[in-house]
Amino acid sequence: MSELNVRAEKLDAADELAGKRAEFVTDDVVYLDGNSLGALPAVVPGRVADVVRRQWGELRIRSWEESGWWTAPERIGDRIAPLVGAAAGQIVVGDSTSVNVFKALVGAVRMAGEGRDEIVVDATTFPTDGYIAESAARMTGCALRPVAPADVPDALGGRTAAVLLNHVDYRTGRLHDLPGLTDAVHEAGAYVVWDLCHSAGALPVGLDEHAVDLAVGCTYKYLNGGPGSPAYLYVRRELQDRFDSPLPGWNSHAEPFGMRTGYAPAAGALRGRVGTPDILSMLALEAALEVWDGVPVEAVRAKSLALTDFFLECVAAYVPEGRVECLTPVAHAERGSQIALRCDDAGDVMKRLIAQGVIGDFRAPDVLRFGFTPLYVGFADVERAARVLAGTLD
Amino acid sequence: MSELNVRAEKLDAADELAGKRAEFVTDDVVYLDGNSLGALPAVVPGRVADVVRRQWGELRIRSWEESGWWTAPERIGDRIAPLVGAAAGQIVVGDSTSVNVFKALVGAVRMAGEGRDEIVVDATTFPTDGYIAESAARMTGCALRPVAPADVPDALGGRTAAVLLNHVDYRTGRLHDLPGLTDAVHEAGAYVVWDLCHSAGALPVGLDEHAVDLAVGCTYKYLNGGPGSPAYLYVRRELQDRFDSPLPGWNSHAEPFGMRTGYAPAAGALRGRVGTPDILSMLALEAALEVWDGVPVEAVRAKSLALTDFFLECVAAYVPEGRVECLTPVAHAERGSQIALRCDDAGDVMKRLIAQGVIGDFRAPDVLRFGFTPLYVGFADVERAARVLAGTLD
Repeated sequence: MSELNVRAEKLDAADELAGKRAEFVTDDVVYLDGNSLGALPAVVPGRVADVVRRQWGELRIRSWEESGWWTAPERIGDRIAPLVGAAAGQIVVGDSTSVNVFKALVGAVRMAGEGRDEIVVDATTFPTDGYIAESAARMTGCALRPVAPADVPDALGGRTAAVLLNHVDYRTGRLHDLPGLTDAVHEAGAYVVWDLCHSAGALPVGLDEHAVDLAVGCTYKYLNGGPGSPAYLYVRRELQDRFDSPLPGWNSHAEPFGMRTGYAPAAGALRGRVGTPDILSMLALEAALEVWDGVPVEAVRAKSLALTDFFLECVAAYVPEGRVECLTPVAHAERGSQIALRCDDAGDVMKRLIAQGVIGDFRAPDVLRFGFTPLYVGFADVERAARVLAGTLD
Repeated sequence: MSELNVRAEKLDAADELAGKRAEFVTDDVVYLDGNSLGALPAVVPGRVADVVRRQWGELRIRSWEESGWWTAPERIGDRIAPLVGAAAGQIVVGDSTSVNVFKALVGAVRMAGEGRDEIVVDATTFPTDGYIAESAARMTGCALRPVAPADVPDALGGRTAAVLLNHVDYRTGRLHDLPGLTDAVHEAGAYVVWDLCHSAGALPVGLDEHAVDLAVGCTYKYLNGGPGSPAYLYVRRELQDRFDSPLPGWNSHAEPFGMRTGYAPAAGALRGRVGTPDILSMLALEAALEVWDGVPVEAVRAKSLALTDFFLECVAAYVPEGRVECLTPVAHAERGSQIALRCDDAGDVMKRLIAQGVIGDFRAPDVLRFGFTPLYVGFADVERAARVLAGTLD
């Protein structure tokens, strides 16, 4: 047994979160793709069966009240809130991340008001945010300015209305400076929208603490909500009265069953709702969030960093120098919960890895992504992944 | 046994669709709320369990390809297509009805082009369409003009860009003249968007035959997709190249996994996609649509009219004249698949009805709605509903 195997055993034995793995459906592969689709929490199948058979099949329409369907978007939002450092009443769940980016960005531009006609967007963003930002700019009469996150402070000015940033870069796994960039945007008199897809559930976000204005995120990565599970929208309490949604569906009305011809927005986070909530997916997500009971995000972050540190150490030990280039920063303050390795034959390498039971993913043209979900990934998994990787690179 | 009981028995015995009821989870209540939430098709629980346990739990990320997750929006759209008279390749499933109204209406205004700056909206619409139309108008620089459907032809002109209409009125159950109104809109050089929420699955729509431009609809009423199941968007084939979505998420990109910075829309109906599809709800819907195998919409329509005719006859026989007012037109050509009865104490009446096992719904301030889903409602149900109603009105 190698020295790294021994280390992995010791780290697993000392891991306070190790018991959480039993709350997921796992098998003998090393699943490092939870940053794309989280594993299935064991509580979900039974809950979904109840929602389908009893709540829908037997109670039918009564479930909108009796099974709490109607209030699910804000109730589940409140369950996500502590994971991203938000007090209750500021998050609603529903729609896709893309749709929520649209709501948030148009809402931010409208808050900024007259004279501010520029949207700044992370130039390295996951593409959908850029496409939606372009549409939001077009529909609000703004110019769109793509800027690398590090250059954002210098790009801000009196014309800046809103800034859309990613907390963690989907490709490189780089963690951006949310507090510092938020401050910079505020100093320029603009509003910031953070995309938390690759950070929520993996590290502390501190939305309230850092006075973030608006935020969006998906729930199918580190929050394990299931394929395409609904996304969420955070609107800071102080801004809710001014949040003017471009998608004012009947669910966001002050009196949704009043069937009024005129629109009057609800108070609070409900203003971010749109149409009828997607109950099956939403209640599957609610069940999935139960695995977080008693789990501090800080403990998850500590383990995440230990996992990625250990992976880098194992890769350095097993993989010949120069065979792969690490795109993820070494500094903890700049690292999310994934490691991205660059090599020219990444597509083929990932196919071989998957064939040998190590599941990561490939992002064109040349990136191997490995996501580390602290709730179900252990240190022995990490050592094995690096060892198998070294073999496939040979 | 009354004459109407005997008639009901004969009608049920002659009903070619009677066997379909066994494909749903039913009980001893009379469920006349399928125009709000369709009953559970018996095939759904097992399918959903497989999606959760095997496709998500075991295959995980592989299911995006191996379980057909990625192509679900257009595949399920093609399954809905024949029910609304559309050839394949023109419908995608996803998002809520409200979000699809936004896509369709903004898309229609953009097709209309310069010089046309007015959106006409059904003044009697289900509220969300009106709210979203107001937002679409605001964001495209259009004026919004609410017009009663019968007055639409006279309201059209050279400034009309788009017209948003409901095929069946959610409150009164009135069926509007889709072919005639579509022609009128086209003669004015404008584009029409039809909301099919209360007609799809209950009567023939004929989208292609009548050259409808765009259409949207929910899937949780007569299509029985489950609570908040995803809605759909139809874009006529000839217009797809010109459909310019206000929500151009990465799923609508010509090369979604190319991770391009610049947006390039996909060809065809895929252009109506936005973010990651909501797989649990979407595949529950796909299973639910299997009950339509071998069922012609024309047969459903014939039974629907027979059911509502018979209900009106039973109400006339059992309920004292003048106690309720029927808001639904008597003429078949103007009737959807619901009957709306007005009375001052409708809220209390509906509570008593539900307590006695007849489930309809109440729409403020004074409407009793009864929806008749031909796939699982029979004529004995209809007679019983009218009889119990008469008792509660006493």
